[in-house]
Amino acid sequence: MATFKGFAMKKIGETGWVEKEVPECGPMDAIIKPTCVSPCTSDIHTVWEGAIGERTDMVLGHEAVGEVVEVGSLVKKFKPGDKVIVPAITPDWDDEASQRGFPSQTTEPLGGWKFSNFKDGVFGERFHVNMADANLTILPDGLSDEAAVMLVDMWSTGMMGSENADIPLGGSVLVIGIGAVGLSAIAGAKLLGAGRLFAAGTRPISVEVAKKYGATDIINYREGPIDEQVRELTGGEGVDSVIIAGGNLENTWKEAISSAKAGGTVSNVNYLSGADNVLIPRVEWGCGMSNISIHNGLCPGGAVRMERLADLALYGRQDPELLVTHKFKGLDKIEDALYLMKEKPKDLIKPVVMLDLD
Amino acid sequence: MATFKGFAMKKIGETGWVEKEVPECGPMDAIIKPTCVSPCTSDIHTVWEGAIGERTDMVLGHEAVGEVVEVGSLVKKFKPGDKVIVPAITPDWDDEASQRGFPSQTTEPLGGWKFSNFKDGVFGERFHVNMADANLTILPDGLSDEAAVMLVDMWSTGMMGSENADIPLGGSVLVIGIGAVGLSAIAGAKLLGAGRLFAAGTRPISVEVAKKYGATDIINYREGPIDEQVRELTGGEGVDSVIIAGGNLENTWKEAISSAKAGGTVSNVNYLSGADNVLIPRVEWGCGMSNISIHNGLCPGGAVRMERLADLALYGRQDPELLVTHKFKGLDKIEDALYLMKEKPKDLIKPVVMLDLD
Amino acid sequence: MATFKGFAMKKIGETGWVEKEVPECGPMDAIIKPTCVSPCTSDIHTVWEGAIGERTDMVLGHEAVGEVVEVGSLVKKFKPGDKVIVPAITPDWDDEASQRGFPSQTTEPLGGWKFSNFKDGVFGERFHVNMADANLTILPDGLSDEAAVMLVDMWSTGMMGSENADIPLGGSVLVIGIGAVGLSAIAGAKLLGAGRLFAAGTRPISVEVAKKYGATDIINYREGPIDEQVRELTGGEGVDSVIIAGGNLENTWKEAISSAKAGGTVSNVNYLSGADNVLIPRVEWGCGMSNISIHNGLCPGGAVRMERLADLALYGRQDPELLVTHKFKGLDKIEDALYLMKEKPKDLIKPVVMLDLD
Amino acid sequence: MATFKGFAMKKIGETGWVEKEVPECGPMDAIIKPTCVSPCTSDIHTVWEGAIGERTDMVLGHEAVGEVVEVGSLVKKFKPGDKVIVPAITPDWDDEASQRGFPSQTTEPLGGWKFSNFKDGVFGERFHVNMADANLTILPDGLSDEAAVMLVDMWSTGMMGSENADIPLGGSVLVIGIGAVGLSAIAGAKLLGAGRLFAAGTRPISVEVAKKYGATDIINYREGPIDEQVRELTGGEGVDSVIIAGGNLENTWKEAISSAKAGGTVSNVNYLSGADNVLIPRVEWGCGMSNISIHNGLCPGGAVRMERLADLALYGRQDPELLVTHKFKGLDKIEDALYLMKEKPKDLIKPVVMLDLD
Repeated sequence: MATFKGFAMKKIGETGWVEKEVPECGPMDAIIKPTCVSPCTSDIHTVWEGAIGERTDMVLGHEAVGEVVEVGSLVKKFKPGDKVIVPAITPDWDDEASQRGFPSQTTEPLGGWKFSNFKDGVFGERFHVNMADANLTILPDGLSDEAAVMLVDMWSTGMMGSENADIPLGGSVLVIGIGAVGLSAIAGAKLLGAGRLFAAGTRPISVEVAKKYGATDIINYREGPIDEQVRELTGGEGVDSVIIAGGNLENTWKEAISSAKAGGTVSNVNYLSGADNVLIPRVEWGCGMSNISIHNGLCPGGAVRMERLADLALYGRQDPELLVTHKFKGLDKIEDALYLMKEKPKDLIKPVVMLDLD
Repeated sequence: MATFKGFAMKKIGETGWVEKEVPECGPMDAIIKPTCVSPCTSDIHTVWEGAIGERTDMVLGHEAVGEVVEVGSLVKKFKPGDKVIVPAITPDWDDEASQRGFPSQTTEPLGGWKFSNFKDGVFGERFHVNMADANLTILPDGLSDEAAVMLVDMWSTGMMGSENADIPLGGSVLVIGIGAVGLSAIAGAKLLGAGRLFAAGTRPISVEVAKKYGATDIINYREGPIDEQVRELTGGEGVDSVIIAGGNLENTWKEAISSAKAGGTVSNVNYLSGADNVLIPRVEWGCGMSNISIHNGLCPGGAVRMERLADLALYGRQDPELLVTHKFKGLDKIEDALYLMKEKPKDLIKPVVMLDLD
Repeated sequence: MATFKGFAMKKIGETGWVEKEVPECGPMDAIIKPTCVSPCTSDIHTVWEGAIGERTDMVLGHEAVGEVVEVGSLVKKFKPGDKVIVPAITPDWDDEASQRGFPSQTTEPLGGWKFSNFKDGVFGERFHVNMADANLTILPDGLSDEAAVMLVDMWSTGMMGSENADIPLGGSVLVIGIGAVGLSAIAGAKLLGAGRLFAAGTRPISVEVAKKYGATDIINYREGPIDEQVRELTGGEGVDSVIIAGGNLENTWKEAISSAKAGGTVSNVNYLSGADNVLIPRVEWGCGMSNISIHNGLCPGGAVRMERLADLALYGRQDPELLVTHKFKGLDKIEDALYLMKEKPKDLIKPVVMLDLD
Repeated sequence: MATFKGFAMKKIGETGWVEKEVPECGPMDAIIKPTCVSPCTSDIHTVWEGAIGERTDMVLGHEAVGEVVEVGSLVKKFKPGDKVIVPAITPDWDDEASQRGFPSQTTEPLGGWKFSNFKDGVFGERFHVNMADANLTILPDGLSDEAAVMLVDMWSTGMMGSENADIPLGGSVLVIGIGAVGLSAIAGAKLLGAGRLFAAGTRPISVEVAKKYGATDIINYREGPIDEQVRELTGGEGVDSVIIAGGNLENTWKEAISSAKAGGTVSNVNYLSGADNVLIPRVEWGCGMSNISIHNGLCPGGAVRMERLADLALYGRQDPELLVTHKFKGLDKIEDALYLMKEKPKDLIKPVVMLDLD
């Protein structure tokens, strides 16, 4: 195959199918044929908000499971035909940021995010993976494609939110936003020792999964400010950890900071947009002296991360397929799946597209 | 009540009932009437191994739930009649070790352990609690006495083992020993993100609870060295975290260190006895260069710890009552319960004694 | 002595001398006669900005060294006549926030700050200290009063800023603001492993001390945005850690975030005022995905903290007296010292007032 | 150059000069011509104790500064002629252990240690470096060869000992052993906030450097057990952190554990040999409940580590050349330098050999 077909961002605000040359496979790289992909809200931001700036004919998508079709001369762990999980973030593990402990920030800030950002993404017949040995992992027996594709960004991002939230064993947690990432944050908070676990959101399909993942209290933000509800439910105390996985820049941060105890933590996993600044409420933040820490981060990638998340699924700690509400079949259905994500109907959490490519 | 009856260590190797004066209640203290107690292996060590040295007519026991009968003049949170959870470890929160972050080590090493060590324990009609506001917590609705009494030492100690084990989210864990503390370590490891979770032990009753608490693989140490079995099951890799909750000083530490990956962690919760030294195998520890860390610790106490553990039970994260295999009723049955603990019949994990005192 | 004289905030915007009853000494408390005090910028905020709200006839001041004149019945470590260091922050060590690891937030957010906030401060002939055994420490031989009084808030606050800044050994640090707290942050950054150490400020007296404390590069913020200068000096890389110890809410946070590498840390020690919100620049913060953490905190108090800071001075790690530019003598000079702090002449870092009270 | 001359371990117990083929330079690798090398005690262990097992004609040495003579096709940061610092440990940054946070353990336990272990070392006219972009760093202006060669193993190892010792700011530290690594641990402990800093050792030349690096108290182990002396000097308290950088397996660990406070840390940087087991004294370790943590580790390598250590030297935080007591000139002098290291005369800390190769 010399060229491949892919579903692309033609320019800001416009999508379409493109035909492109199959990328070259460097000595440490691999070329992959996807078997299952899933669109992400980031794809929507990228195309219709211009969130990462202008791009021309860039194949979209960064969530995929696939089959290796070619490997570079230095690749030791993989060979054509291997079925692999592909992390959304594929760091340059030899970069200085990786040595500093932040592989997702390699080469430049957010630089570990390559698919549908610095190069063509996974919504095509073929895609390229850098540092294959470090970034790919074999899809284990017992894990379906649609389960595995939920790990590569949703679980990895959402659960990072929980890891960054400094949850004390048995501590109380608030997750704001119950889209796929927020639900993964809830799943992660339960896995990391949350006692009481508040989830703020309203969509019935999400509320149902939130409870299955471990939420103990659902907060409807339409019934009043989240922090006021949390304070009331906790006898004024607030919570140990807050994870922001939704909301907006006008209210959400105020509510998050105001929900946290002094000494608590606010952890963001939301792709922030819509204003120039995040507003941290001064008085609620103790005039800068409350010992409330604020963390953010970009989805962790790489093989070890994927293996660990796969183990959580394989050993029944949580079920990634709870996130999958819609299944499509065939390359051409990627377009439908993406537009479904854009429209966000009531019964949607995440769609997947099963592929059966040559 | 001027005097109270209690079941005591008369001297090393001998137990019996004693009559003692009810202790004075200092300004920050409380006097408690137990409603439920549980004997601990430490009580056995104390009496029959002389583990903490000679003691004379010291009331035994450090696991209790009870009712407040008297509080000191400076106590603000409690009043007679309150039903409370009493942590096995009651630190002096104003001590320097507490300021250093180690409340269980206040006043002297292991000094937070006061019951049945530096003063009379909880196996009597009355007992004394220091710094009541900081150490006691109200027994919440929805938590039975027998559930709550499992938190005060078993869960707190075992789960500390998991907290000290630096378990990566989705990482692999080995727990050696599946007595009540080992089982609590398993419960904690699952709560703290373990993926695959090996439990080494043989007693059927414990194996059953180990699986309910989250063990994925049971290792029978009679079938070969634990580390060899773990290495085989993990394709030679070993595990990220090892928790020692049983075994002996001849083999267990060798097996633990040998089971851990380079960069892994070994966390001890076992009360070590039987030899002068813990033996860390030099070569398996990478000649001192393997990045395998070793942690130990004394059961965390205090009100906040108890509240958080209670929340884990209340919100259904794990069930403390799985540990309770035998229930007795009446003060005089404390003796039977302790001797049962000493004999350790096949169907025993933990006995509790329900009390109905004046 | 039944009453004492003190220099007080009469109401917002007004100061004056008051005569008050000597406070009662509870069982765990102590009454202190100060021998050396120092005004703080917080006193200025308190009186002239109404930063903590209205107060009536409240004795000001929270930085003191003194002599014990009375102790409560439960105090074990101190007796009248002992010369002691008094931390600005005196936590309730038995509170739940202390058990959670945040003693400065005991009883309520910022609740460890009692002097000149919830009760009379140290600018009088007598003052009250809660939990004396946990909060006071003996002034060691070899440490002058004026050196010791620099530890209780300036060093403790500034060095906390460095502790919260996650400085890698040999990492690069930027301290914004070189008042007494900023200088202490510089001193702390050097003590915690900083390699290159930028200090942003302009006052010559402070620049001189900044260099003595370990600053390697001085940035004059009048010559352009701090972040642009830092980026230029570091070849575009930015720094590992930023400590905010001055500036305003309009520009400083933007410059701080923009100076940090992805994966870096911003640590605040500035008492924030002047606007409703702290503005975190969205794009520079990686749209919430840069792995740049933000910490704040209230000055750590307590005996152990004071002992450790005293050791840093005693063993010559840094010299607290470098901060002292003006010395006064006599109780009535407290007024002059406070107004000097308010006027902030060019040659001032910190004034102290030596007392010789009956 | 097709072959090169090197000073090698012929077999256990025997050294000599060998002629070998210049290694091939893979796409990510570099070939280096050393300009300055230094023998290490590990070389002695390797040859005369057979510490890493049998080796045949393996060029010795892992401490070098040099000049790049060839780079692979994928190397971006370096070109022939560049003067570089070469870390003793050169991890495979794409390995799973690196993703787990332990780059020194890549490919297998201790696998980041390649020179004079798995391949020829640096004591020859040419040597090979894997993953050049990630492992090499340009020798900065202002840093001499002999200073830089002290960073690659001595400082990196010794200071890791301090980083692993959890030193509280102003805390007390004991370093056991004042060879080059122990002295670097002292240097690191001061850089990481030590207040009082005990150094146990006797050699006058080392004692002098220990004081320059920040030791406040010298303990002569010939005058009694180290722990007894430390306990006496600290009023019975012990120290917060102990770093083991010397001693033997019979006494040193007992003394180390016995010197630490409950809640303290023992950090090992000593290459352990001479017995099958490290003995942790059971009672002094609180029967496994003292909260005394034990860490070890292998010298951190890589470019970022070297840059940070270089910055510590460049900005005058500590002076690496204090370790250099002997300078040789010429390739053939490597033999003399190694034998000097073996004999360890009274006035030796570390020798270096300056090279001027074609």
